[in-house]
Amino acid sequence: MNYKLMRYVIGWLIIFESVFMCLPALVAVAYREKAFFSFMVSIGLGMLSGGLLVLKKPENKEMYAKEGFVIVSVSWMILSIFGALPFVLSGCIPNVVDALFESVSGFTTTGATVLGDIENLEKSILFWRSFTHWIGGMGVLVFIMAILPLSGGNNIYLMKAESTGPSISKLVPKMKTTALILYGMYFAMTLIEMLILLMADVPLYDAINIAISTAGTGGFGVRNDSLASYSSAVQNIVTVFMILFGVNFNIYYMILCRKIMNVIKTTEWKVYFGILFAATLLVTINLNGMYGGFKGTMQQAAFQVASVMTSTGFATTDYNLWPEFSKAVLVAVMMIGACAGSTGGGIKVARVIILAKTLIKELDISVHPRNVKKIKLNGRFIEHEVIRTVNVYMVAYIAIYFVSMLMVSLDNFDFTTNFTAVTAMINNTGPGLAAAGPIENFARFSALTKFVFIFDMLAGRLEIFPMLVLFAPSTWKK
Amino acid sequence: MNYKLMRYVIGWLIIFESVFMCLPALVAVAYREKAFFSFMVSIGLGMLSGGLLVLKKPENKEMYAKEGFVIVSVSWMILSIFGALPFVLSGCIPNVVDALFESVSGFTTTGATVLGDIENLEKSILFWRSFTHWIGGMGVLVFIMAILPLSGGNNIYLMKAESTGPSISKLVPKMKTTALILYGMYFAMTLIEMLILLMADVPLYDAINIAISTAGTGGFGVRNDSLASYSSAVQNIVTVFMILFGVNFNIYYMILCRKIMNVIKTTEWKVYFGILFAATLLVTINLNGMYGGFKGTMQQAAFQVASVMTSTGFATTDYNLWPEFSKAVLVAVMMIGACAGSTGGGIKVARVIILAKTLIKELDISVHPRNVKKIKLNGRFIEHEVIRTVNVYMVAYIAIYFVSMLMVSLDNFDFTTNFTAVTAMINNTGPGLAAAGPIENFARFSALTKFVFIFDMLAGRLEIFPMLVLFAPSTWKK
Repeated sequence: MNYKLMRYVIGWLIIFESVFMCLPALVAVAYREKAFFSFMVSIGLGMLSGGLLVLKKPENKEMYAKEGFVIVSVSWMILSIFGALPFVLSGCIPNVVDALFESVSGFTTTGATVLGDIENLEKSILFWRSFTHWIGGMGVLVFIMAILPLSGGNNIYLMKAESTGPSISKLVPKMKTTALILYGMYFAMTLIEMLILLMADVPLYDAINIAISTAGTGGFGVRNDSLASYSSAVQNIVTVFMILFGVNFNIYYMILCRKIMNVIKTTEWKVYFGILFAATLLVTINLNGMYGGFKGTMQQAAFQVASVMTSTGFATTDYNLWPEFSKAVLVAVMMIGACAGSTGGGIKVARVIILAKTLIKELDISVHPRNVKKIKLNGRFIEHEVIRTVNVYMVAYIAIYFVSMLMVSLDNFDFTTNFTAVTAMINNTGPGLAAAGPIENFARFSALTKFVFIFDMLAGRLEIFPMLVLFAPSTWKK
Repeated sequence: MNYKLMRYVIGWLIIFESVFMCLPALVAVAYREKAFFSFMVSIGLGMLSGGLLVLKKPENKEMYAKEGFVIVSVSWMILSIFGALPFVLSGCIPNVVDALFESVSGFTTTGATVLGDIENLEKSILFWRSFTHWIGGMGVLVFIMAILPLSGGNNIYLMKAESTGPSISKLVPKMKTTALILYGMYFAMTLIEMLILLMADVPLYDAINIAISTAGTGGFGVRNDSLASYSSAVQNIVTVFMILFGVNFNIYYMILCRKIMNVIKTTEWKVYFGILFAATLLVTINLNGMYGGFKGTMQQAAFQVASVMTSTGFATTDYNLWPEFSKAVLVAVMMIGACAGSTGGGIKVARVIILAKTLIKELDISVHPRNVKKIKLNGRFIEHEVIRTVNVYMVAYIAIYFVSMLMVSLDNFDFTTNFTAVTAMINNTGPGLAAAGPIENFARFSALTKFVFIFDMLAGRLEIFPMLVLFAPSTWKK
């Protein structure tokens, strides 16, 4: 393990996070809030410790898969711990475990909260909450990579560990440029959503918060009722943007490069839109005019399906009160999740497609043992290694479910609460059902359960392996 | 598809089932019950239709993987339909769908019932219910194979499709002899349990029923309270035998052949006992003296854990009232299931071991990409094909969960009921939690849901692929 490189990367991470914190500090100045001092103290501490860590450059900048995994998972833990500082220092979440939960929930773009009444909090704190979504959505190390030359060209391992989906595709040969393009598009799309929200008469502060929270497919809002009290126009705008941020960003790059044929050849976004549409339709029919007629009901259904499938977790209604079929649809799309290479969570549509094709192929082999076809995705053959990794991913996913369910059950909440809470954590959605539902909050759970949830959220965001590698003894052997 | 061979095998199947039905008919004579006529009509119909089907021997007795899968799944459906006749004819389950559910639940050794008050039913009907467990437990086609030379030596495909576990091992080179040995051990162990139950003062009728129900790891009993009202000695005897019938029968063959070293080298049974012990201990601690002291509580915990893990589904208490952690443990072991090559259901310990080793191997590859080790089970390297099949098995398993959950949710029962009912069906356990719990019955579900459950039970018993192959278009192509 290249500890010196790890120290160096983490140093820069903390420095960048301190710089990010200047934004909420500015918000605090604008609204003359006391939280300003909490941010300044955090920034000072961050600059100091980060500065010390990066003082000495590592001679050996070599990074292998192991370093990639470990640096990313440790970085995300430190990111979260440091990000929790303002919550604790400002006194808005005095309990350290709660503050850490909120911070992890933010950076992993989960959006589950321990806070009940958020409208009483200072605006700069709420802004920081939403901003953590934006930072975590596209990946903070990817951002740093876009600015700094972190290591000797091997930082593809960092991107592999931090990006979503079964395999990554470089947009351009250079990783640094790829990272820059991704962040450029991310920033532009966030800005567009914000401007459209402003046009729909959303106040500036709300528009910024909603836009960055949607962009990261996070789900922290600035009102106690999430998005329920905004106009249906605003809700529809957010529906569209949630869906857009759940699309693989490669698609947008192809569109920018006018490679429309490549877009057409790509399967994943079609399946993604297909599932979104089918799920919305099924829920709309099942809700049977619950929200005044077909149109209103469909709007609610579309919002909730999009929110849950992209793992955003905004709510416009308490879907806990929906019929069981609609709730089952929500849980199903929660697990499926968004596209690979998006800011969304879940298993990812690309993986679901690969798994479905593997199953069909296996049935074919059962019937015609000599008839072996290779599996294609997005018009290309998938490497055997990717298929194997996707299969093992599912095994790890289920294993984490098992262990989490057992540990969380010790709190003695009902099965539905436990199962959907774990689902909402590992898929980075935010709210689940029952006592983990959209109008509830996670303060009720014990500290042990919160730690399980913290692990699940990180495992979900980093797609499990980087977190599991930490527990493998061979990782720490010399 | 060799339809002529299929017709021939199914003909013999129906004839054998008619012969099996003579036993409950004898019980009806002994107790002078009206159900006698229902059995006689069923037997007559079976002999006639079966006889017609086997009149003409197929010239081409060749059987391939495809035939093996399709014959087994179609056979099991016909077995269940024909087995439901006495329930309908005797009027004890007049609803056809309900009767089919009960029959499938019997043959698949699930043990979920649509009946509320079974003590009012005729004893011959209850005996037939329990006897279906015994027939289905070891596999009815395996039984026929042991008696008749069904096809030109290729009937390993039938055994592959009907036996449990990721791969089968022939005990002796000849399939017919292997089947005979398996059934011999099965019969002997059932007899031993019956004798021990008689020694514990259980009435003969109850002893036979409990023994055959335990042997198939089924779960149909003869009292409304399952096994709650029997003495704790009887309960302990059943605990031991449930556990024994959940062990791979190869182990018993090794013991009979005095190949003790081979037993020691085998991993699966050790992990199986380890999980049983750990789960019992955890539940006992969690129940915290609920049943008067450590010993009594441990007995209850051991019974329930064994019952659920081996997929038997007997109950001595309403574990719906247990704390959530204990219930989560039960759901977890329900999914893990018994050993491969036993009469028990679930994913099977062997598969769980393979999946766990795959995961560990994948983590190793992440850390040391060049360090590729092969996976071992029971002291032998596992073929790549088996690993792939196990992985795809999990994908199919989860897919069935998804679709089943969605369809069952239309009944609008709560999430816990739906999830655990599907779990209890696909793992052939019997009772789940909440409204599908051990003191409830499945009559409350709609006909659609019952058909979903029927599919799930068959898929669980035949380990998914034979049932899915029916839906693959390539199966039916010329």
